[in-house]
Amino acid sequence: MTDIRVGIIMGSQSDWPTMREAAQILDDLGVSYETRIVSAHRTPDRLWEYGREAVARGLQVIIAGAGGAAHLPGMMASKTRVPVVGVPVQTKALSGVDSLYSILQMPRGYPVATMAIGAAGAANAGLMAAGILALHDDALAERLDTWRAELSASIPEVPVDD
Amino acid sequence: MTDIRVGIIMGSQSDWPTMREAAQILDDLGVSYETRIVSAHRTPDRLWEYGREAVARGLQVIIAGAGGAAHLPGMMASKTRVPVVGVPVQTKALSGVDSLYSILQMPRGYPVATMAIGAAGAANAGLMAAGILALHDDALAERLDTWRAELSASIPEVPVDD
Amino acid sequence: MTDIRVGIIMGSQSDWPTMREAAQILDDLGVSYETRIVSAHRTPDRLWEYGREAVARGLQVIIAGAGGAAHLPGMMASKTRVPVVGVPVQTKALSGVDSLYSILQMPRGYPVATMAIGAAGAANAGLMAAGILALHDDALAERLDTWRAELSASIPEVPVDD
Amino acid sequence: MTDIRVGIIMGSQSDWPTMREAAQILDDLGVSYETRIVSAHRTPDRLWEYGREAVARGLQVIIAGAGGAAHLPGMMASKTRVPVVGVPVQTKALSGVDSLYSILQMPRGYPVATMAIGAAGAANAGLMAAGILALHDDALAERLDTWRAELSASIPEVPVDD
Amino acid sequence: MTDIRVGIIMGSQSDWPTMREAAQILDDLGVSYETRIVSAHRTPDRLWEYGREAVARGLQVIIAGAGGAAHLPGMMASKTRVPVVGVPVQTKALSGVDSLYSILQMPRGYPVATMAIGAAGAANAGLMAAGILALHDDALAERLDTWRAELSASIPEVPVDD
Amino acid sequence: MTDIRVGIIMGSQSDWPTMREAAQILDDLGVSYETRIVSAHRTPDRLWEYGREAVARGLQVIIAGAGGAAHLPGMMASKTRVPVVGVPVQTKALSGVDSLYSILQMPRGYPVATMAIGAAGAANAGLMAAGILALHDDALAERLDTWRAELSASIPEVPVDD
Amino acid sequence: MTDIRVGIIMGSQSDWPTMREAAQILDDLGVSYETRIVSAHRTPDRLWEYGREAVARGLQVIIAGAGGAAHLPGMMASKTRVPVVGVPVQTKALSGVDSLYSILQMPRGYPVATMAIGAAGAANAGLMAAGILALHDDALAERLDTWRAELSASIPEVPVDD
Amino acid sequence: MTDIRVGIIMGSQSDWPTMREAAQILDDLGVSYETRIVSAHRTPDRLWEYGREAVARGLQVIIAGAGGAAHLPGMMASKTRVPVVGVPVQTKALSGVDSLYSILQMPRGYPVATMAIGAAGAANAGLMAAGILALHDDALAERLDTWRAELSASIPEVPVDD
Repeated sequence: MTDIRVGIIMGSQSDWPTMREAAQILDDLGVSYETRIVSAHRTPDRLWEYGREAVARGLQVIIAGAGGAAHLPGMMASKTRVPVVGVPVQTKALSGVDSLYSILQMPRGYPVATMAIGAAGAANAGLMAAGILALHDDALAERLDTWRAELSASIPEVPVDD
Repeated sequence: MTDIRVGIIMGSQSDWPTMREAAQILDDLGVSYETRIVSAHRTPDRLWEYGREAVARGLQVIIAGAGGAAHLPGMMASKTRVPVVGVPVQTKALSGVDSLYSILQMPRGYPVATMAIGAAGAANAGLMAAGILALHDDALAERLDTWRAELSASIPEVPVDD
Repeated sequence: MTDIRVGIIMGSQSDWPTMREAAQILDDLGVSYETRIVSAHRTPDRLWEYGREAVARGLQVIIAGAGGAAHLPGMMASKTRVPVVGVPVQTKALSGVDSLYSILQMPRGYPVATMAIGAAGAANAGLMAAGILALHDDALAERLDTWRAELSASIPEVPVDD
Repeated sequence: MTDIRVGIIMGSQSDWPTMREAAQILDDLGVSYETRIVSAHRTPDRLWEYGREAVARGLQVIIAGAGGAAHLPGMMASKTRVPVVGVPVQTKALSGVDSLYSILQMPRGYPVATMAIGAAGAANAGLMAAGILALHDDALAERLDTWRAELSASIPEVPVDD
Repeated sequence: MTDIRVGIIMGSQSDWPTMREAAQILDDLGVSYETRIVSAHRTPDRLWEYGREAVARGLQVIIAGAGGAAHLPGMMASKTRVPVVGVPVQTKALSGVDSLYSILQMPRGYPVATMAIGAAGAANAGLMAAGILALHDDALAERLDTWRAELSASIPEVPVDD
Repeated sequence: MTDIRVGIIMGSQSDWPTMREAAQILDDLGVSYETRIVSAHRTPDRLWEYGREAVARGLQVIIAGAGGAAHLPGMMASKTRVPVVGVPVQTKALSGVDSLYSILQMPRGYPVATMAIGAAGAANAGLMAAGILALHDDALAERLDTWRAELSASIPEVPVDD
Repeated sequence: MTDIRVGIIMGSQSDWPTMREAAQILDDLGVSYETRIVSAHRTPDRLWEYGREAVARGLQVIIAGAGGAAHLPGMMASKTRVPVVGVPVQTKALSGVDSLYSILQMPRGYPVATMAIGAAGAANAGLMAAGILALHDDALAERLDTWRAELSASIPEVPVDD
Repeated sequence: MTDIRVGIIMGSQSDWPTMREAAQILDDLGVSYETRIVSAHRTPDRLWEYGREAVARGLQVIIAGAGGAAHLPGMMASKTRVPVVGVPVQTKALSGVDSLYSILQMPRGYPVATMAIGAAGAANAGLMAAGILALHDDALAERLDTWRAELSASIPEVPVDD
């Protein structure tokens, strides 16, 4: 078993500018993770293997980002009971609505915890992972509470001209 | 602290026919839960209190279903770090796309694990909750694995005329 | 009780370039107002307090702008009977349709007077506030009539090449 | 000047099943109103006259419902500074999104306070009118507060099977 | 009666870059026209008068372009039986779908001949006007036939790299 | 040359319940017409021939209704300079938005006068045809004016419960 | 190697009422086929095996129908170079637009020949398969030509009232 | 009969930057092809002739790209039983959803194998053509297998910052 608790996987290198928001959050909160490119269509066997070994490796959350016909999150959810958090990456023609529907509309049996389209969704995927881990990690729970409190405290009372 | 591990909340009684799919799954998997009507707009103080006490009460997942301008899941995510799973209830004019966007498009900081629109999404909310709890409950993990295996095994090889 | 008659609130600093159109209109029409950042998710208690005190402070209209899962206008409408005018801020992936649906599709009981997406909507929020105040302020009614007449008079008869 | 404080107008008889929700709310709250069919396209002169006389007649809010290319609310907003509340009536092919866009996307200068599509939007139009009138009518403010409190109090804690 | 056969009207100066495509086509085909800014909301009386006098002035087609809550084409169709050709101008948030629905979805009784969104639609509005006029103008019919033949002949057989 | 002035064509028998609204209007206004099934895909040669002979046969307007990938109106516009009025027939999965886009979004050169989706659009196609013919038919112009006046006069002042 | 030339696969029994349209066409044209339920999520190993053996079994076209997050066609295209024809099954909340986007928007490398949403798309999947097979089967080519000719010949000239 | 096996046709020169992705794939895989501009509306007779001669010329796949009211692929499918692969070209106002619906939603009888919107769809059209040809061309099948294997092998395991 590994010490890695979260797997951040994505369909291609081009998803990384979006998905590193998730990595950044996990860095900030001190959560161990790995990053992998796992393409549902181009490397389906890698997907299969990653899913099959997820429980044994001790992964507790898998964050999966993809765009277009975004099959990675849902296929991963079919291969493992480890909770899968899906991030719809924004696309050129359809703005990520294609990614969203492909990730969200999973049939009964295989949930994907879908986040907002794009970078905010990726950051929130990191926070969702942290929230799940915090259920059994009091130190992380405290760091997450602090992170949330600081976010709230950072909001100025009055808007300013730039 | 309560023995209840999952809270199923919803914006109104009319969401119950959708949301009881989540309850059914939790019954099937032997996960304790409670059901509450918590309207973001009509009973905001109930929402506040539910969120504020969630950690202390030992809730580990909150499943929140709502339709239209569906503020309940996101507002709950703002009040507690307990993971919130959102279910967009189908609506008359906009088929639940209004519910979906209101639940999904959360800003950085407050993730909602959004499920598919309607009953399949509610059932999957139950399964997502079970998957989270199973990370630290081996008996439940086994029941969930069995549930998934039975679902797979139930699929006939060939379609039949009805 | 304050002399401020209109509260312009918004979910974040990034909404200000849109929302200052409302402020500009109120400046032009001589209507007193305040501007506040009130995030439904990051500062929910600030929202609560703002809503609870609105009547007592003598606010007569609250203009609320937000983007994405835009819960601010609707949550404010749940906390006070002071009329709430909602402005859907344009967003990157979904062009503000997410903001629109989150603001518009309020359930029976809690109306939000929704304006067009973006800057024109913010300006019109200012005009809607003025129109409401003008019902009991003859001097403002006259200024508003003049503003409208000047807008009409400013339209040239024939389009010109630039 | 008339005693009527709210005008409920609509594009055709077929809008009445939707719009009577507004009338019902005003009845419940003791607000005087009139109902009129004013078609932007079929009776444009009626629209003109209604708008031109609105201030003089003492109307304080005009609730306008229409479907499809729903020009009535916006054209009324162009003819009078009395606040116009727009209700997009649901349509067959486009579910009222056509009505919504035609009412909502008004240019700078002529706001329409747009409500949700359909019957809930019509009811909320009545409540928005009441909220505006309540700014200068303490008895109505009290009745509105009571109405809102009763709505909140009517929400059961737990959903029940039917 | 005037010699002008086509009126090109638009909601604002900002529509001119789109609408001059219609003018250009009419120039190319030798059809007399006038251009006017007629705002449904800002200059409704101008709209009224333009519509009321259209038959008497001998106008045979009115081309009307507008964006957003685009009421001009439909309101003009309500004021005159002269054929109205509508051009949905592209908009910022909704790409002209708002303009399109506001122009297209006219109720029974008041047709607007809706063209494609944007500049191609404006050019086609000019061609539609020419096609209508050509029914009783053989010289124009011939010029239109030639224009169409030249367009067909201008298409190369094989695409080339640029 | 024939006495028929308007051709009502449609892609299939299943479009007739929609398209007969156009025929009914032309009957009411005393305009001669023919009805034909001309499928762009199933009978393309029929389309070709109909288009090629339209001018010589003296047709003055072609009303073309179709659903789905609705190519009939646009292909007809490519074959003849006789004005083509397009009616998007409502469809099962996409409510006629597919029909609409296929008819509306014609490239520069080949306008189709697009009407609203469904039966109201078909009726308006008849009225658009009548409006075009009325430019050179004073008796029809009078009948059309009367039809419009009667429609306006038929609108009651006040809605009634049913 | 089998004599089966076309595999008709679908995500669940509930897709069969749609997909049997494909089977019917293949029956009509005398093309051998098999039908299988292959769920991307519930029976991923079945999908893997079906794809891996497709070439060796001599399958020449795979018709794959699915609804919602419809991953079956695209995942099959990733597993075999046998041409995959995808049929988006209509869904309850999103009318099959979710199915469509999940099937259509495949990344570079793995095409799915997407058909129209629903039953017409399924029938056309059968015809597309026949068209591919007809390239090297003259007898089938002739049957397909006849089928197409009969379809064309079956269209009446004039619509009739029912 | 020609040696050309694939025809790449498109509605206008402006589609070439998209469609050359198809040509590039066919070059890479050693498949002979021709490129032609065939506008459904501007050169319908060219379309007719191209379709009528396709079988006799030995074309085995026709790749057709078009934007807006994209009638070329569907009309070609009506004229020949040679398999037609359609590529929806992205458009300005509607992002290619207009192209998509015009190509996809073909009626029973005339399938178009629709690809993703834009350049990825064009590349996949080339691959779909290759997959069809490979059914009876072992050398091409091997090249296609190699191309697919190389694509899979090119995916790095871990994303890298740029």
